[in-house]
Amino acid sequence: MPGIITLLTDFGTRDSYVAEVKGVIATKAHGVVLIDVTHDLAPGDLPAARYLLARTWHRFPAGTVHLAVVDPGVGTARRAIAAEAGGHYFVAPDNGLLSPLPRDARFVELPVPEHAAPTFHARDVFAPVAAQLTNGTALTHLGQVIHDPERVAIPGPRRDGAVWVGEVVYVDRFGTLMTNIPGELVRPGVGLRVGERDVGAVRRTFGDVAPGQLVSLVGSNGSVEIAVREGSAAELLGVGVGVEVRA
Amino acid sequence: MPGIITLLTDFGTRDSYVAEVKGVIATKAHGVVLIDVTHDLAPGDLPAARYLLARTWHRFPAGTVHLAVVDPGVGTARRAIAAEAGGHYFVAPDNGLLSPLPRDARFVELPVPEHAAPTFHARDVFAPVAAQLTNGTALTHLGQVIHDPERVAIPGPRRDGAVWVGEVVYVDRFGTLMTNIPGELVRPGVGLRVGERDVGAVRRTFGDVAPGQLVSLVGSNGSVEIAVREGSAAELLGVGVGVEVRA
Amino acid sequence: MPGIITLLTDFGTRDSYVAEVKGVIATKAHGVVLIDVTHDLAPGDLPAARYLLARTWHRFPAGTVHLAVVDPGVGTARRAIAAEAGGHYFVAPDNGLLSPLPRDARFVELPVPEHAAPTFHARDVFAPVAAQLTNGTALTHLGQVIHDPERVAIPGPRRDGAVWVGEVVYVDRFGTLMTNIPGELVRPGVGLRVGERDVGAVRRTFGDVAPGQLVSLVGSNGSVEIAVREGSAAELLGVGVGVEVRA
Repeated sequence: MPGIITLLTDFGTRDSYVAEVKGVIATKAHGVVLIDVTHDLAPGDLPAARYLLARTWHRFPAGTVHLAVVDPGVGTARRAIAAEAGGHYFVAPDNGLLSPLPRDARFVELPVPEHAAPTFHARDVFAPVAAQLTNGTALTHLGQVIHDPERVAIPGPRRDGAVWVGEVVYVDRFGTLMTNIPGELVRPGVGLRVGERDVGAVRRTFGDVAPGQLVSLVGSNGSVEIAVREGSAAELLGVGVGVEVRA
Repeated sequence: MPGIITLLTDFGTRDSYVAEVKGVIATKAHGVVLIDVTHDLAPGDLPAARYLLARTWHRFPAGTVHLAVVDPGVGTARRAIAAEAGGHYFVAPDNGLLSPLPRDARFVELPVPEHAAPTFHARDVFAPVAAQLTNGTALTHLGQVIHDPERVAIPGPRRDGAVWVGEVVYVDRFGTLMTNIPGELVRPGVGLRVGERDVGAVRRTFGDVAPGQLVSLVGSNGSVEIAVREGSAAELLGVGVGVEVRA
Repeated sequence: MPGIITLLTDFGTRDSYVAEVKGVIATKAHGVVLIDVTHDLAPGDLPAARYLLARTWHRFPAGTVHLAVVDPGVGTARRAIAAEAGGHYFVAPDNGLLSPLPRDARFVELPVPEHAAPTFHARDVFAPVAAQLTNGTALTHLGQVIHDPERVAIPGPRRDGAVWVGEVVYVDRFGTLMTNIPGELVRPGVGLRVGERDVGAVRRTFGDVAPGQLVSLVGSNGSVEIAVREGSAAELLGVGVGVEVRA
């Protein structure tokens, strides 16, 4: 029985691209459940795609297929790949998008059918493979095993004396700054700095400060984040992805 | 057999928050159908959330579970609640969001699991409960019955001599002004006023006026609304939620 | 067993309109799969609706019902219609939206129930019919057969000596210009012109030019398009729908 396929792209929701992908999947995998992660990534924003994929995939049941397509190199020599990790399946271009997968993930290179539109592999290459995976086709029946998928280093925090130095890796729609500093590294009571600004010690939730005030938290993915209660930290601080955070 | 869960939040569609909620639900309620009401509410806009919930829930079949989360007080002392009304189920923070429910609705207070992220009860508190409800768990098995859920007064129109005085309670994406004046209160032929502006007597549909003209109607939820054919009444009149409407 | 219903509207995703339509469908067609094409069309943009419908419907399996509602004349004398073509079903206002359907499509006029809100036929007229079609009701049981549905001419390219002269018919979220010139008409190596600007001969994919450069392609629907690699052709060229393209 087909299960769940999630979709994560930079295609937007104004055009028919996402629906064309879904139409192909629905034609080949009757009864599949399609769940959007997002299609509103800035075009080509691979770091954001990796961040969202890393947060999301393990929330779904084993057997879920994750179709993730941010693909500025579509139709070029970059490979098309599928992967398996922790009982989940992934279909994506081989451009580092699957870097958040665990080290023991298995990868195959997908053949690109002759008829595939060079500018729309999501529809003509990845969607049919996602359908096959949810229908139960084995990963290794879909392509040649490869051991060298493109992996980009996901930045982690470093020590500077007693201080952990990380950075903002994502900014959400509320303007909250997500960092790469795991919550368990932060010593209770120690003040955080974002760029040149002191944002105080880690609190529990937004309501622990007054509206409009900065607050640092251990966020819902376990990492430190900096928010403004009922406001935007990105706007208040005038910072974004890449700015240094010291904890 | 799991049924339908609707989702109404201010989480936006750019991030992974909605998908994380859906992943938890899909893991716990195999085969459930997930239907978005909207995720594009302005952050913290409880009046709009109440307006949309009131319009929507009764359009779904009995047994549907409505997960509604606009939750500026997440992680504070505000309670988490679930409710039943008219054969429908509701899961939400206890901040007045469920005020549109009928007077005979039944409510329970939900326990907050130890592991729940203080900033993401939608995923860690409300989603599992929505899954349990769609799987058939009885409301009263989910928490202690309460009789004092937070209720805010939904504003109604008042009489001023022969005139009904109400207000704009919502503005839709077309710039149409939705009022709290039931259509059946409006006497045929009587002109409406929005703020200082005369908008004429109630017509049947947009096509009853010329493009660019103001038109007042009994809208699709039974209340009076003011629109501009092929345009925006909010923009033309320069008004929004809270402005007085006289009928 | 109910199948798939796709939805294509200009209702936006901020309000509850789409969910009200889905609630009606889900109430009447248990187990139906609902797939959004888009709801982000500019209000009343019938040409864009036709373009997206034409690209999308045949990607879905036979038996799919396509509900398409861009309906500035809602509640006026314009008819409500349903259609069948190629084993697919369509429900829409009779305002030319179904012009992309093949010549052999069959049409019926739908009755408008007394209780239907004059401003929301999508919910009160089209949604119930979509549910009936997915439940297996025959098209001809839903209304009187008609032979004169509103059809607008979909513009095609014309010859000017050795040159094909077409136009931009759609601009996507990336700013890519979609033309009405079929890819097979373009002679290899011949340079294209968009308005006054030379955009070079047709290439295979975005990666065939440097970032920021114009590129003409045969797009994923088989027609010529003009893009900027990692950029927007609409912005770079300052043009939009209707501009002349010579190939």
